[in-house]
Amino acid sequence: MASNGVTVNLGSGRSLSSHAGVTLLEALNSAGVRITAPCGGEGTCGKCRIQASGTLAPVTPAERQLLTPEQLQSGLRLACQAQVQGDVDISVPDTSSQPEMRIVEHGAAREIQAEPAVIKCHITVPEQTLSQPYSRLEHLSRCGDLRADLVTELSVLQRLPSILDSVSGSATAVMRDNVLMAVESGNTVDQCYGVAIDLGTTTVVASLVDLNDGRELARAATVNAQTRFGHDVVSRINTALEQRDGLRQLQEAAHESIALVLKQVLTEAGIPSEQVYDAALVGNSTMAHLCLGIHPGSLGRMPYVSTAGPMLLAPPESTGLSIHPEARTYVLPSIAGFVGADTVGAILAASLDEDDGRTRLLVDIGTNCEIVLRLGDRLLVTSTPAGPAFEGARITCGMYAAPGAIESVRLDGEVGYRTIGDQEARGLCGSGLVDISAELLRVGIIDATGRMVGPDELDSDVAKGLRQALIEHEEGMAFVLHNGGGGGRVFLTQRDVRELQLAKGAIRSGIDLLLEYAGLSPDALDEFIVAGGFGSYIDKHNAMRLGMLPRLDPDKMTFIGNGALVGARLALLSRTLRRRGEQVARTAEHLQLAHTPDYQMRFSESMMFDP
Amino acid sequence: MASNGVTVNLGSGRSLSSHAGVTLLEALNSAGVRITAPCGGEGTCGKCRIQASGTLAPVTPAERQLLTPEQLQSGLRLACQAQVQGDVDISVPDTSSQPEMRIVEHGAAREIQAEPAVIKCHITVPEQTLSQPYSRLEHLSRCGDLRADLVTELSVLQRLPSILDSVSGSATAVMRDNVLMAVESGNTVDQCYGVAIDLGTTTVVASLVDLNDGRELARAATVNAQTRFGHDVVSRINTALEQRDGLRQLQEAAHESIALVLKQVLTEAGIPSEQVYDAALVGNSTMAHLCLGIHPGSLGRMPYVSTAGPMLLAPPESTGLSIHPEARTYVLPSIAGFVGADTVGAILAASLDEDDGRTRLLVDIGTNCEIVLRLGDRLLVTSTPAGPAFEGARITCGMYAAPGAIESVRLDGEVGYRTIGDQEARGLCGSGLVDISAELLRVGIIDATGRMVGPDELDSDVAKGLRQALIEHEEGMAFVLHNGGGGGRVFLTQRDVRELQLAKGAIRSGIDLLLEYAGLSPDALDEFIVAGGFGSYIDKHNAMRLGMLPRLDPDKMTFIGNGALVGARLALLSRTLRRRGEQVARTAEHLQLAHTPDYQMRFSESMMFDP
Repeated sequence: MASNGVTVNLGSGRSLSSHAGVTLLEALNSAGVRITAPCGGEGTCGKCRIQASGTLAPVTPAERQLLTPEQLQSGLRLACQAQVQGDVDISVPDTSSQPEMRIVEHGAAREIQAEPAVIKCHITVPEQTLSQPYSRLEHLSRCGDLRADLVTELSVLQRLPSILDSVSGSATAVMRDNVLMAVESGNTVDQCYGVAIDLGTTTVVASLVDLNDGRELARAATVNAQTRFGHDVVSRINTALEQRDGLRQLQEAAHESIALVLKQVLTEAGIPSEQVYDAALVGNSTMAHLCLGIHPGSLGRMPYVSTAGPMLLAPPESTGLSIHPEARTYVLPSIAGFVGADTVGAILAASLDEDDGRTRLLVDIGTNCEIVLRLGDRLLVTSTPAGPAFEGARITCGMYAAPGAIESVRLDGEVGYRTIGDQEARGLCGSGLVDISAELLRVGIIDATGRMVGPDELDSDVAKGLRQALIEHEEGMAFVLHNGGGGGRVFLTQRDVRELQLAKGAIRSGIDLLLEYAGLSPDALDEFIVAGGFGSYIDKHNAMRLGMLPRLDPDKMTFIGNGALVGARLALLSRTLRRRGEQVARTAEHLQLAHTPDYQMRFSESMMFDP
Repeated sequence: MASNGVTVNLGSGRSLSSHAGVTLLEALNSAGVRITAPCGGEGTCGKCRIQASGTLAPVTPAERQLLTPEQLQSGLRLACQAQVQGDVDISVPDTSSQPEMRIVEHGAAREIQAEPAVIKCHITVPEQTLSQPYSRLEHLSRCGDLRADLVTELSVLQRLPSILDSVSGSATAVMRDNVLMAVESGNTVDQCYGVAIDLGTTTVVASLVDLNDGRELARAATVNAQTRFGHDVVSRINTALEQRDGLRQLQEAAHESIALVLKQVLTEAGIPSEQVYDAALVGNSTMAHLCLGIHPGSLGRMPYVSTAGPMLLAPPESTGLSIHPEARTYVLPSIAGFVGADTVGAILAASLDEDDGRTRLLVDIGTNCEIVLRLGDRLLVTSTPAGPAFEGARITCGMYAAPGAIESVRLDGEVGYRTIGDQEARGLCGSGLVDISAELLRVGIIDATGRMVGPDELDSDVAKGLRQALIEHEEGMAFVLHNGGGGGRVFLTQRDVRELQLAKGAIRSGIDLLLEYAGLSPDALDEFIVAGGFGSYIDKHNAMRLGMLPRLDPDKMTFIGNGALVGARLALLSRTLRRRGEQVARTAEHLQLAHTPDYQMRFSESMMFDP
């Protein structure tokens, strides 16, 4: 297209450059000027009103619907509708500016505009008179200037009469988009909370968020009670297929774990459950299906697809959440059978939904490992079954990243480690597992094939303090990290090393094959992002030494912690990011790894160490 | 605005004249060219695609969202979005044409475009392959080219796996707007039904409609089981206020009656209940509140307003309907506390939602009587408590217009009458009540005050056959219309005449005061429309003789039968009319009659006869 630059004059001497064909909202947003658009620019809320004159495209049908003839006459436009065609003068009303939020997780951060799906509006409600014969609901709506397309569930209407009888002059409306969820007496705008749930195959995490400012008020984690039916998604799918009532039992187990972490965060923050008006849930497709009571059978057979993929608003009790009854759990959409809502969440957390011109790779390490490549306007995704080792499951002394977990290890003549919360060591979390394995490899206690050698095979320069830590264990050698009082020991066994090898082999072969598919070498990456709920950061050098991650400039490597959970929090706080995630789910290109001829070979190669 | 005529060229030598500033959809609609726009021109469904070139306003954001860049490049536009700015060439795709429906009721008819809220789409569904990793729901949606903004309730998703497992190549999607209600195996497009319910204070009527062609398949009526709590809305409101559990009992009574008429129409038409995918309900505000379990208390005290006013989509079981579980009962909106959804329905039935340049008055006669005046772009409404006389209640031998009801009477020397279905007379319906009262007034058996005179007071020219019909009754005289076998008599008592006087006085004073408020004489009316469920038509001359309706040119008077019910049927068949009704509810001007100083005086004057 030819150059078609135009100037948008904002008054007070400020102006910005844009080009013909974009809407005023797009022009303002790209210049960093934020104005209120709760509907996300769909032309349905009518909130992005702006005074505009100059060369603009004609008034659209949406504007004719949402603005009165008088307002249009006076030059009022909807910024999301009005297309710039030449130089334009505008004035942005003060009331349209939005606060910004900074969603921080383990040092990584994403700046977003505050536009939570659920908002509270305080309304001054004078007594209704005979000349206002319309319904009390409409009276409330008019007094509060609520959305014209307001809708209400019958259950809310049934509660309204007694609430409205008690309202004397002041009420608060709780709105989800154009849905009136509740009316409360007085001004309760301050009390508005949401909960983000990461339903992992192994670990379930809840994060309680203040919807007014985006702050995380509390976080809690627990082991998914479904693990009693097996450690991976395949065993869960088989339970649903084979056991009578299996689906219901799996659903109840998921709900039990979700209810537990919800209770923990509410207790910690001192928030009553009925003030939690919104929830967002991420999880892989199997977890989402089981939690919602949708049979996962199709995920277990060719072509391995889910039944439900797009986003879903589910009643909270159907996801195990006892929160406000009119809340709806926003279940993030999924991309493919084995690339679920958790990946969409991590993509949002890593800002991979946007093309910023850089080539970026995201590895989300969980029981299933998903790998995402942002390459220009393309988003390539794949997944690989890493197993639960990094979340502590199937590791003899493994545990989730909680106080007492060994999170980093250093073998300098003797065994040194640090635990989360500096408490006495109780077990080994993901980052600790990586460290101890890499250190044992470095000092020669583990060889390139992953075998843990006996004391008599060790090089003579291995320190005595380390030799003494080697013990005989049921299935081979083991290495003791901690000898606690009362016989509480933390150690790593030969079998644990094999579990690690399976996990890191799966992750590495997935990364390599996706990069090869895209025709890229690891050096071509501008950023390498690692997500996952394993304690603090994994040591970059140790992860590369193990061959779990490809060797590249460590400065390019960033850690974003539990990206899936951050994505769920972002979905609570930004309607725009909900839509972006839905767009990602529709447009990402999925690479079916298990069905490339190379995969099995590459997987077994990747299990070896390359010290 | 200056003349700005433009030509829209439709190809094949056809063209139409329009003017700059309208959308293509508006230009085509006003020329009678119908194209598919299931979303009603809101720019959300993307179905009104049209090939267009010439002087058009730029592509709108809605078009950029719903059309691909390639489609836009090729000149495809959405007719509801593309604004005509000069001469335009278009071609209307064949697939966009819509059938028209003619909704007929008692000879009155309204032509509408077929655009039911619920539609069925047959989909050919090939097996999904590994290269299509998205969910089965999305596969279905892509194969069927369903709406991009498709949403699904969890309850539907939970049923989907087993349904999709059974689909082999062919399925039918049931859609309500963008909501996927159900998926059925095979092609079931032919079986798609809706039910319209008129929940009157006295009478409950169901009408079963084929959503594919608009035909009424069956109709059934019954007495509202709530009448055991009182005959008017005030007594029902008091029951809810005063009796423990009163609201629940009233709700159950309404549901009982609705379930009964539903069962009758389904049995008559031989349609299974789960093939009824849509329902529309009209009723006055009190009936709607009681049916839905919303406390009607605020309707019984100043300022006499409802709690719920706007339209509502309610789960079918909450309105007593055992139909498809994913159906939603569309409850039409109400205008004011005593001008409810039934009036909005009658307004739609009478086409009063549109200004056709004529001044038109609608009187909807029920237990509550609503009067609507279309005056240019204004719509004035009021209501007046007529009581249930015209529906047969509180009339000694009164009955609803059903087989055996005397529907017209002529006193020519002897008593002559006609019954509905030509069956033996069982009682007197509304039109029969008007006829017998007017005839008794004509022959002098009733005087101007409404007194039924004794045989000895009668003029000598009163025929013997009529004198003999006069009998003494408990509270004065009575007039016998029919002496059946086994002592089954049909007669009119003095008290019945008083009930009629109360009813006609309320109706007439309402009409007069509304016309006075608007500054009109009855002669200024271009059309006088009478709606109500009272048998066949009321005799115009008799209604005028009684003073129930003002005297005017009988040719201006039309009867549309049960307008409220027709309005509910129209809401099943036209999303545009749903929106028009919602617009009417928001914009109609309400006149609070009971609070004008003149009302009581005018009411008592209007009770007299003016023979």
